[in-house]
Amino acid sequence: MSALPQSLHVELAALLGDAWCTDPSERLAYAFDNSRRESLPDAVALPTTREQVIALIRACRAHRVPLVARGRGTNTTGATVPVAGGVVVSFERMNRILDIRPGDRCAVVEPGVLNGDLQAVLQPHALFWPPDPTSAAFSTVGGNLACNAGGPRAVKYGASRDNVLALTAVTGAGELIECGTATTKGATGYDLHRLLVGSEGTLALIVEASLRLTPAPASRRALRAIYRDVSSAAQAVARLMAQPVTPSMLEFMDAHAVRLARDVGGADLPADAGALLMIEADGDAETLPHDIEALARAAEGDGLVSLDDAADDAARAKLWAARKALSPSLRTLAPGKINEDVVVPVSRIPALVDGVQALAREFDLPIVCFGHAGNGNLHVNLMYDPADAAQSERARAAMARVFALAVSLGGTLSGEHGIGLAKRDFMPQAVTPPTLALMRQLKVVFDPDGILNPGKLLPP
Amino acid sequence: MSALPQSLHVELAALLGDAWCTDPSERLAYAFDNSRRESLPDAVALPTTREQVIALIRACRAHRVPLVARGRGTNTTGATVPVAGGVVVSFERMNRILDIRPGDRCAVVEPGVLNGDLQAVLQPHALFWPPDPTSAAFSTVGGNLACNAGGPRAVKYGASRDNVLALTAVTGAGELIECGTATTKGATGYDLHRLLVGSEGTLALIVEASLRLTPAPASRRALRAIYRDVSSAAQAVARLMAQPVTPSMLEFMDAHAVRLARDVGGADLPADAGALLMIEADGDAETLPHDIEALARAAEGDGLVSLDDAADDAARAKLWAARKALSPSLRTLAPGKINEDVVVPVSRIPALVDGVQALAREFDLPIVCFGHAGNGNLHVNLMYDPADAAQSERARAAMARVFALAVSLGGTLSGEHGIGLAKRDFMPQAVTPPTLALMRQLKVVFDPDGILNPGKLLPP
Repeated sequence: MSALPQSLHVELAALLGDAWCTDPSERLAYAFDNSRRESLPDAVALPTTREQVIALIRACRAHRVPLVARGRGTNTTGATVPVAGGVVVSFERMNRILDIRPGDRCAVVEPGVLNGDLQAVLQPHALFWPPDPTSAAFSTVGGNLACNAGGPRAVKYGASRDNVLALTAVTGAGELIECGTATTKGATGYDLHRLLVGSEGTLALIVEASLRLTPAPASRRALRAIYRDVSSAAQAVARLMAQPVTPSMLEFMDAHAVRLARDVGGADLPADAGALLMIEADGDAETLPHDIEALARAAEGDGLVSLDDAADDAARAKLWAARKALSPSLRTLAPGKINEDVVVPVSRIPALVDGVQALAREFDLPIVCFGHAGNGNLHVNLMYDPADAAQSERARAAMARVFALAVSLGGTLSGEHGIGLAKRDFMPQAVTPPTLALMRQLKVVFDPDGILNPGKLLPP
Repeated sequence: MSALPQSLHVELAALLGDAWCTDPSERLAYAFDNSRRESLPDAVALPTTREQVIALIRACRAHRVPLVARGRGTNTTGATVPVAGGVVVSFERMNRILDIRPGDRCAVVEPGVLNGDLQAVLQPHALFWPPDPTSAAFSTVGGNLACNAGGPRAVKYGASRDNVLALTAVTGAGELIECGTATTKGATGYDLHRLLVGSEGTLALIVEASLRLTPAPASRRALRAIYRDVSSAAQAVARLMAQPVTPSMLEFMDAHAVRLARDVGGADLPADAGALLMIEADGDAETLPHDIEALARAAEGDGLVSLDDAADDAARAKLWAARKALSPSLRTLAPGKINEDVVVPVSRIPALVDGVQALAREFDLPIVCFGHAGNGNLHVNLMYDPADAAQSERARAAMARVFALAVSLGGTLSGEHGIGLAKRDFMPQAVTPPTLALMRQLKVVFDPDGILNPGKLLPP
């Protein structure tokens, strides 16, 4: 049985009909997300209209019952786990693509549309929506916006926040607000829609999004650059980012990652590889050779061991194999991993990687770094055995130090995964007390009774 | 004599020394901005440090005295006119460039740095800061950020809000807040720095900005496309924006503007020109011919009268002469003008221009449209004689209808000039009541006593 007040249950059952679930077996599917945390909601709502969302929020507010918005739960931070019970609002049935206007470079969608489905519909128009998280095939646009999802392409095309024009949302007060305008320029009042992006469902629930689209490049080409050490690779990243041809991806692997990809993943990599960059350019077939040449020139420099050009798609796939071989290989180091995605200014990547390796030695745990070097956004994978209490404790302590390190280098806790539950208690390390106090006050304006995703993003 | 409380005057004179001016002749220079509105402040503060800004705000808050932040007053909306008296805070002495980090594509500056001075310092690094308002040579970075300034390049590189990584600011409560991180990606709490951009000094005063830089293109080339009518030109704009080569400028002139440039400005333009597009591409000299070819292909289509390619800088300057001849020519139509910068989705440009011409007939006043077509951001110039009361009244009434028209087409009041005093009372046309109510509540969070730039942006 659900723990909701009976009168609320009756009201919402009448409002939502078969879109209101209180059966425990149905609720179970909405208890967890990709963080592997779990907490059973008291009910699940599957609204199909914004009017239902408004009525739902107003009813829950009247009873002070928490509401946790959810796309497909692919986030890794626990942001959609209903830790305080209440109602999970799944947007899976609000999944219509409402309008595509190629001349305006704009798509209007409901929040439950899958990122991958949107891309497929955009393909005939030779347009795409830039955010490309690993989960793209099965994560929703609403979830991408809630977490400010990025991906490798962000180095050239930006993350979710950079690719949204306007949002319609319902605040925790049950008010429908229209934020932004579906134009690529605007100077009319306060910028509310970018404030909602990345707010993890704690301020308002998005019911419609006008997305900024980008013309799809006709071709891609990739380079694989192997360096003697991390410092040489990081200097190459700085050179690559200081010249005019912005790569469409610029991915980094440290020595551990390279060794794993080679020894466990079977990737074709030399023994003296101390770091690796995957550099991709996209554009017109005619100009791409010139762009690749400019990138190759920037990749060259002290410490370069080899530079391979993948002239066709097959060769490109082979180069990417080194990166793809990586994630499965990690499990051979230890059964458990904490994967965080700190971000630092590009020039501080060597200091971050060196500092992380010092922590690996200090805490006697393998740490493998790879990720989106062009944004300074590295995935720091801390490997440990969850069955070993001492190791687990050391892993948590080491990760806290990784966060402190990133902040000390002018960076912050998360580049693209967000805060959720996982990093909530580290917020005071990254955000000053008056700034955090202001964030709390903003939360109260949008959500006066604190019913939207309580316990997430802001520390208690 | 200043109307400030004597105790405040004594306190601030001691705090600021010669950076505290109450002499009427000195104050006069800070009474107006480019809106030609005027109101004398009670005092002018010229702080040199953030600590002074904090102390200044706290002291003024204690006495409920208004503070109006100011760069160089180039805005056109009255945003820096101290209509409620109080203290003008001019950032002209906080004009240091604190750091330039090419590998991070980042510059850290104080708010009083001139946009043009920053560009000059960036040039040897082959980097630039994209916002390029007409005032760039003599407007400040802080002012650009406060107004979310754009310019022609915004079509490719974005406006001010798209080109800032982090801001340090002092709220109306006198709290120093640090918003954002100097990294190109971030998912750590609420996005406060983009909220401050475009808030016109009503939420907080910016004391330091980390700007996002872009590698400078090596070359530019321009096309001038002349069309039979506005509809043909607008269709070309949609085609240009739907293909992968984004122009670095895409400027539009309607038939009135073309006629003025030709007949009054002496520009070399054919008699049957009904609309004109200036299309510019930038990039590497090797790939630029290909990009220009792609843009020329997209410019071609029904209604194209002529397409001229400016192969070198001299030819490019000649093509731009048509646009430059325009502004001075406007004065021949009438001595007064209201120049507003509404924005609509690109596909609605023809409907906007048609609607504006219908209003010109209805109100019997010439209206000339030109501007940044790639963003749907048109400058609508309503010409009238300010000495003629009836004409002035008709001009104001017509402009109100232009705003209503832009909003009805899915656009909004301002693309890049902002709201200030000039468009404040039109905000309820563009922003729904609950959204406006939320903006007011946000204002209270940042500025509990309403001392920052009172009377601007939000209607009373």
